[in-house]
Amino acid sequence: MNKEKPRAVVLVSGGQDSATCLALAVSQGFECYALSIDYGQRNILELNAAKQIAHALKAKKHVIITADLRQWGGSALTDDAIAVPEQSAQGTPITYVPARNLIFLSFATAWAEVLGARDIFIGVNAVDYSGYPDCRAPFIENFRRTANVATKAVDEGWEFNIHTPLQEMSKGEIINLGHRLGVDFSLTTTCYNPDIHGGACGKCASCLLRRQGFKDAGLPDTTKYAK
Amino acid sequence: MNKEKPRAVVLVSGGQDSATCLALAVSQGFECYALSIDYGQRNILELNAAKQIAHALKAKKHVIITADLRQWGGSALTDDAIAVPEQSAQGTPITYVPARNLIFLSFATAWAEVLGARDIFIGVNAVDYSGYPDCRAPFIENFRRTANVATKAVDEGWEFNIHTPLQEMSKGEIINLGHRLGVDFSLTTTCYNPDIHGGACGKCASCLLRRQGFKDAGLPDTTKYAK
Repeated sequence: MNKEKPRAVVLVSGGQDSATCLALAVSQGFECYALSIDYGQRNILELNAAKQIAHALKAKKHVIITADLRQWGGSALTDDAIAVPEQSAQGTPITYVPARNLIFLSFATAWAEVLGARDIFIGVNAVDYSGYPDCRAPFIENFRRTANVATKAVDEGWEFNIHTPLQEMSKGEIINLGHRLGVDFSLTTTCYNPDIHGGACGKCASCLLRRQGFKDAGLPDTTKYAK
Repeated sequence: MNKEKPRAVVLVSGGQDSATCLALAVSQGFECYALSIDYGQRNILELNAAKQIAHALKAKKHVIITADLRQWGGSALTDDAIAVPEQSAQGTPITYVPARNLIFLSFATAWAEVLGARDIFIGVNAVDYSGYPDCRAPFIENFRRTANVATKAVDEGWEFNIHTPLQEMSKGEIINLGHRLGVDFSLTTTCYNPDIHGGACGKCASCLLRRQGFKDAGLPDTTKYAK
C-alpha cells in the first residue's frame, strides 16, 4: 500500500458513468478499490466489462459480490417476466431495481470500513435518471448520515464521504470528462438488452442516452450496435 | 395471499432474538416473509436453523440471499484469521461485522418494496449489543429515513416502518416473550463458535448471554452445549 494515497471504494457497474467516476477518483489521487455487484442483472456482459475497466484504470483491487436479486425480481432488469421497453415511460421506469443503490452503497460502506477508507464514489446521475429515487441527492445525503451511525465511524469520531461527481452532469458532459481522463469507452456496456455477442440494441432508453451523449460530446461512438 | 393481512419482511438469523421477533410479527397479524443472509458466517448451522424457525412459525416464504462478506473479512465471524474471543472486550467487539445490519436492512427494504410491504422487523438489541453501532436506535431511525427516499415510497407518498421490538429488552425478557409466543428455542443457534455437530461452545460472549437469559427467564435451557 502506498501510504500517501487515501483509499476509496468505487462502485463500478461496467457502464460509461461509473467508468468515468473511477477515472475521476484515480485522477484525484485515491487508491481505488473497485466494487461490482452480480445481482442477476439481465446484461451479463456488465461484470466482465467492469473487470476490464477496473484493470484498465489501475484499480488496486476489484471485487465482485454476488447478491441474487432475481430471488424477488420486481424489475425488468432482474425478472425475465418483465420486458425491457424501448422507450422511457412516465413515472418510475420499469428498469428501476428496487433499492439497488441502497444495497450497493451498503456493500461499499462495509468494504470501506474494513479498508479504513472514508471515501466512496458512486456514478449516480440525477439528470438522465430522474425517475430513479436512488439516484437523487436526498437519498445520497440520507445514506451518508446512516453510514456514519451504522459503523465504527460514530464511535471513532470520523465520517464517510459519499462522492457523486456526475450527479448534475449531462451524458455528453460525462462522456467528455471520461474522454479527457483516458476512459476507453469501448470497454463499457450500458444496453439494457444486448444480444449474446455483446451488441447493444441501440433502441432501449439506455442506448438512446448513450448515443445522444456521444453526439453531444462531439466524440465518435465506438459502441457496437446490433442494428 | 390473505388480503386482510398486511405483509412484513422479517430478518431471521437463526438465533433466539430474531425467532422471537418473527413470532411477535406473526402474533401481530402480519403475513411474514422471512429473510436470511448467507454472508459467510462462521456458524454454518445458522441458516438451517433459520429455515426451520421460519417453517415452524409459519412464515409465508423464506428466502436466503447469498452475499459473501468473507471477500473482505474484517470480523471474527467472517475471517478465519481472526479468532473468536471467549470474553467480551472493551470497545467495538471483534465479532462486529462491518455494516452487517445496514446490508441486511437494505435487502429487506428491496424485498419489501417488491412485495408491497411497508413493515420490516429486525431483532436488534441495544442492551446486550451496545458495542455494535448497527444495533442502536440512531442507526435504525436514520436507516428508516434513507429507505423512504431510496425507494418508490418517496414518490408514492408512503413510508416504511422499521420495527425493533426487542431493542430495549434484556435477554431474559426476550426469552420469556418468545416462550409465551410459542418459539421452540431448541431450533435456534447463537454460538459464535459451535462444534461440527452443532454443540454450542458455552463460553463465547453469545453463549454466556444465552445461558444467563434462560436463567433470568426462569426457563430450562434446551441448548446442546459441547461442555
